Amino acid sequence: MDILKADKQSLEKRLDELKKQYEHFKSLDLKLDMSRGKPCREQLALSEGLLTVISHNDDAVYEGTDSRNYSLPLGLPACRKLFAEMLDVPVSNVVAGGNSSLTMMFDAMSQLVYMGAAGVLEPWHGRKIKFLCPVPGYDRHFDICEYFDIEMIPIEMDENGPKMDIVEQLAGSDPSVKGMFCVPKYSNPGGQTYSDETIDRLSKMKTAAPDFRIFWDNAYNVHYLTGGAPRKIVNIYERCVLYGNEDRPLIFTSTSKITMPGAGVGAFAGSDRNFDWYFKRLNVQSICADKVNQLRHVLFFKNADGVLAHMAKHAEIIAPKFDMVENILEEKLGGCGFASWSKPEGGYFISFDGYPGCAKKTNLMCKEAGVAFTAAGSTFPYKKDPLDRNQRIAPTMPPVSDLKTAIEVFAVCAELCAVEKRIEELS
Amino acid sequence: MDILKADKQSLEKRLDELKKQYEHFKSLDLKLDMSRGKPCREQLALSEGLLTVISHNDDAVYEGTDSRNYSLPLGLPACRKLFAEMLDVPVSNVVAGGNSSLTMMFDAMSQLVYMGAAGVLEPWHGRKIKFLCPVPGYDRHFDICEYFDIEMIPIEMDENGPKMDIVEQLAGSDPSVKGMFCVPKYSNPGGQTYSDETIDRLSKMKTAAPDFRIFWDNAYNVHYLTGGAPRKIVNIYERCVLYGNEDRPLIFTSTSKITMPGAGVGAFAGSDRNFDWYFKRLNVQSICADKVNQLRHVLFFKNADGVLAHMAKHAEIIAPKFDMVENILEEKLGGCGFASWSKPEGGYFISFDGYPGCAKKTNLMCKEAGVAFTAAGSTFPYKKDPLDRNQRIAPTMPPVSDLKTAIEVFAVCAELCAVEKRIEELS
Repeated sequence: MDILKADKQSLEKRLDELKKQYEHFKSLDLKLDMSRGKPCREQLALSEGLLTVISHNDDAVYEGTDSRNYSLPLGLPACRKLFAEMLDVPVSNVVAGGNSSLTMMFDAMSQLVYMGAAGVLEPWHGRKIKFLCPVPGYDRHFDICEYFDIEMIPIEMDENGPKMDIVEQLAGSDPSVKGMFCVPKYSNPGGQTYSDETIDRLSKMKTAAPDFRIFWDNAYNVHYLTGGAPRKIVNIYERCVLYGNEDRPLIFTSTSKITMPGAGVGAFAGSDRNFDWYFKRLNVQSICADKVNQLRHVLFFKNADGVLAHMAKHAEIIAPKFDMVENILEEKLGGCGFASWSKPEGGYFISFDGYPGCAKKTNLMCKEAGVAFTAAGSTFPYKKDPLDRNQRIAPTMPPVSDLKTAIEVFAVCAELCAVEKRIEELS
Repeated sequence: MDILKADKQSLEKRLDELKKQYEHFKSLDLKLDMSRGKPCREQLALSEGLLTVISHNDDAVYEGTDSRNYSLPLGLPACRKLFAEMLDVPVSNVVAGGNSSLTMMFDAMSQLVYMGAAGVLEPWHGRKIKFLCPVPGYDRHFDICEYFDIEMIPIEMDENGPKMDIVEQLAGSDPSVKGMFCVPKYSNPGGQTYSDETIDRLSKMKTAAPDFRIFWDNAYNVHYLTGGAPRKIVNIYERCVLYGNEDRPLIFTSTSKITMPGAGVGAFAGSDRNFDWYFKRLNVQSICADKVNQLRHVLFFKNADGVLAHMAKHAEIIAPKFDMVENILEEKLGGCGFASWSKPEGGYFISFDGYPGCAKKTNLMCKEAGVAFTAAGSTFPYKKDPLDRNQRIAPTMPPVSDLKTAIEVFAVCAELCAVEKRIEELS
């Protein structure tokens, strides 16, 4: 039933049906958690070999380096090489770090704010600083901006990535616009992959700030669901070099959702100047990262092809979960007229847009029926979704049966809220 | 030969002998590295079991938590408990972190500088800030101060720790003196353990700055060499609580030199307010630390007693190395009149004081003979040893035969420089 076209009477009838369905779900005493993008147990189990690939003292010595001892603040050379292959950047410009690329981003931002950017070295602190934030986006990027008191400007996305006319206009005219967060492939949560043109324009555009920086969070670089291989995107680093803007991108990735979240390895890459700049802090902050875990990853994967083969197994496990969510949404809300959702080719999320003004209430109703979703609004700066309609759905972690129930609950709540709202509007 | 009492002629004769000995060492084409305090292979091998204690998927699930997945930004409860036992602080006030307590210190300092201290929240940034630095001390503490543009005031140490009259005077009178770095047990490099009175006075003293903070780097908490057990020291946390100064200490430790440097676990502990303050940043900076590695440590050690049993094996390996260094120094320089050195009961270093004005040259001569020591001056703020006489000796890593040669070279160089200097002075 297309609720935008339905009359008040039909809507009221539909509301009754939905309320009954909702009460039924409430009576089931559910306890389902769909709130975070976490791998499921079957995915984690794929990396069992990582646990034993270094089992004996001698295994820990590799290419002359004892991974167990202090040394190599930039990371184990073989691990830097693995990331260089995965990111297609020179190995000399890659730092293999600790367990979290988020921490590397936080630290890089801290350095920008308090020490200034490489080559410019004028701290951002004490001045009005703005960042462009494609929306819907990743709440933890927004949290970093908020922590450092950086004003966030939401930038709408379309299927090619952030709307570049606006990005160019803002970055080109306002010197307080100092940077941008990007998840270029299988974006969180919309699933968009930036088009060649988008990346070209990001690399080429004039910026009013000489120290404009793009946080290029390639978190889902190899995390495809369909197509049998990850999408290829334009190499931001090469493109920026081409246009003489090589210091613009700060590139991050990690193995968190390849092997084990929290027990993976993060990486940073950037121009020579950015690399030296990054190292200057790193070398005071730390003696070295966990090279034993870096070596585990090297021995487990061998090379970038090894990573891809591993990701095929992930896709096998989680693609059906995404299919199920999409099928249930289609079945329950396909003709409803008010909702749309992403059909991602990769990444960890489905982005759902419901009837405006209903996301918070839908989320709350789900919660009251025992199904936790990511807090509504989280996908926007300051946790404020201006239309109150976006919900991030994270299908990977729950078992299939839980997932089915959770999405059915969600569909009922979303429609119920929409119908109620619509009746109000017609009254 | 006591060179302070010898006449010029005897000194010149002695110089000839020493030069011959030095040339002999140079001809050996040595390549020995004594520069850092690293465990040797035999010590690392003690933790082989750590590598396999989590070998199967099921091993990674502990007390209902899958250590492989995102969660628990404060660390695995069982790992927090282990550190709480080791530090004798409440488990609710402990964060089990990543692989480096140095990083935790850097981050805490960053937070103090840019966000201000817990309960005060007035950033230190933009004002003259001074820290008291017991000397000789740990170069990486000094590097942190230098990075954040904190002026370091060297504080002399005696066998009871930093000279408390001076500490009380400076901290009590100057509000720009905001804190202090302490390695309270088996200090780096002097080996001193702070006396009960020292710790009591540190806890009790009036400070002009309301946000005075002690970085209590208990890096060698359990790292004894003699006596069959680690020295007991006064619990700084309890003592500060007693005097109403519970926010004063920021307590750090790690397993770096218990299991594997770089692949260990670091920890932070502090008052409720400091804990909340620490978490506020941590929760933006990171989703969680590497809980798999935390769980490895929990399963490998079981409890603090397990750690102590492990440390006995370390002592067995490295105590003879310390003995050898002390014996060679005694044999070569025992009656020389110009040198003294620490005889540590624990920790990783011997601190050597030679003839004033000779440390840099001695270090360089060793280097030219193929024996690398920690750069002279490193044990002082700004790498400036005012008397140019201190050398940190790190006996743990080299095999016994290398160590013997290295110290023999060092003793010859130290005496040679001293004799040369003495001749100059008499001319």
